[in-house]
Amino acid sequence: MSEQLTLYLHKLSPYSAKVELALVEANAPYRAYQIDLPNKPEWFASKVNPVGKVPAVTYGGPNVDPDDPSPLSAKIAESNVILEFLADLYPDSGLLPKDPVLRAKVRLFIDVTTKQVEAPLYDFIRGQGSYDNVLKGIEFIQGLLEEGTDFAVGDHYSNADACISPALARLKIITETDLGKFPVGMGYKLGEELKGPKFAKFRKYAQGMLDRPSLKQTHDEEYTITFFKTRFTERVQ
Amino acid sequence: MSEQLTLYLHKLSPYSAKVELALVEANAPYRAYQIDLPNKPEWFASKVNPVGKVPAVTYGGPNVDPDDPSPLSAKIAESNVILEFLADLYPDSGLLPKDPVLRAKVRLFIDVTTKQVEAPLYDFIRGQGSYDNVLKGIEFIQGLLEEGTDFAVGDHYSNADACISPALARLKIITETDLGKFPVGMGYKLGEELKGPKFAKFRKYAQGMLDRPSLKQTHDEEYTITFFKTRFTERVQ
Ligand SMILES: N[C@@H](CCC(=O)N[C@@H](CS)C(=O)NCC(=O)O)C(=O)O
Ligand SMILES: N[C@@H](CCC(=O)N[C@@H](CS)C(=O)NCC(=O)O)C(=O)O
Repeated sequence: MSEQLTLYLHKLSPYSAKVELALVEANAPYRAYQIDLPNKPEWFASKVNPVGKVPAVTYGGPNVDPDDPSPLSAKIAESNVILEFLADLYPDSGLLPKDPVLRAKVRLFIDVTTKQVEAPLYDFIRGQGSYDNVLKGIEFIQGLLEEGTDFAVGDHYSNADACISPALARLKIITETDLGKFPVGMGYKLGEELKGPKFAKFRKYAQGMLDRPSLKQTHDEEYTITFFKTRFTERVQ
Repeated sequence: MSEQLTLYLHKLSPYSAKVELALVEANAPYRAYQIDLPNKPEWFASKVNPVGKVPAVTYGGPNVDPDDPSPLSAKIAESNVILEFLADLYPDSGLLPKDPVLRAKVRLFIDVTTKQVEAPLYDFIRGQGSYDNVLKGIEFIQGLLEEGTDFAVGDHYSNADACISPALARLKIITETDLGKFPVGMGYKLGEELKGPKFAKFRKYAQGMLDRPSLKQTHDEEYTITFFKTRFTERVQ
């Protein structure tokens, strides 16, 4: 792959993290450029992603500075769309298996993660979602996990694992720190509940994902906790 | 493709219709089996889709009766996941282009359609969504349409077209009949608004999609209108 690939991201964005995880796991060369979200540079929306969100990638075109994107590169947004793009660029990476049925399993896992884990979890953290929906999503995901493998689908790291891992990292934080806009104690409670035998399969899978070098490389836990502290100090007791 | 493919669907389900459109446009052999949604057969959830929704497909395995699905076939659910599956099975169908950047464009179009056209439109029809969100979604989609082609992306019918077409068919019905749980007249109003010059590009694209033989073959407009009449007669005036 000789074309340049630049990833515009934010250190705290779980959607950005999905994409960076996939890049690292695929051993793909890329440049990362941090977008200061509260203070977005004007060129980001006008030249990279009209919607103004990270992640976004530029692909191909001349080798320009990331803060001066070329009109000649392709621009791609939406984390799950970028994950598919990376699998297309790197067909031997395992980000998507070769078999159509296994590919469909990866995509179903991503669909369930996006609608039933990611969304309810981030709503819960923001104080806008229900505890039960978080648990329900985790149960659903656990039901998709197969025995005898450490991965979401098949015996290789795929986009399914990359998609869910940033949510798993945030789940760990809230269950260990109780930081979030949910009622005091609910983060801890969730942690206790997930320690039960009912969630053994999920727990084992999640731990495997959190232990991966790619996650440690792309996720700054300390930094995220510090941010959560600042953001959630004015919480309603 | 010698493996059997059975599509479980419902005549009124727009999600089912996406998949059937793609099958027809790809010239793919398939069996269609109607699931009576208000009266689902017990085997559907236990043997095909645990979530109990259509569309779902079985793929491969022995050639059994659709109402006696084999444990040996693969089971795939979620309309957008099935669309990708069909593109994998039929790489020369054009359901997805070969170029990774164009493939990403198809997927972005599907993402926008699903979140910003389909969801707001069906919410609006059910009386749970806002008129403005419907218009906003249409504007967003129009912004993705390119000049000089009749298709959503590139110069061939793709999954992007299959994904949006069932929504376009329902948009036509509500703007022409005013049937829906929205306040009386809002369907007609939407129709008038979409007739303006601002929406010329969208209108041309939508008409092209509605005129396709694949749509006429898979969408029974009379039947859908009759159902809308029954469903929406107790509307609040
Ligand atoms: N559905 C999008 C979500 C992306 C998203 O919401 N990104 C946030 C950061 S976590 C963002 O860029 N927000 C900035 C803004 O909306 O101005 C994806 O999956 O890529
Ligand atoms: N996200 C799903 C939605 C499928 C869906 O909602 N199907 C409806 C019919 S339009 C259904 O089967 N409902 C029956 C039920 O929920 O019991 C997809 O895209 O396939």
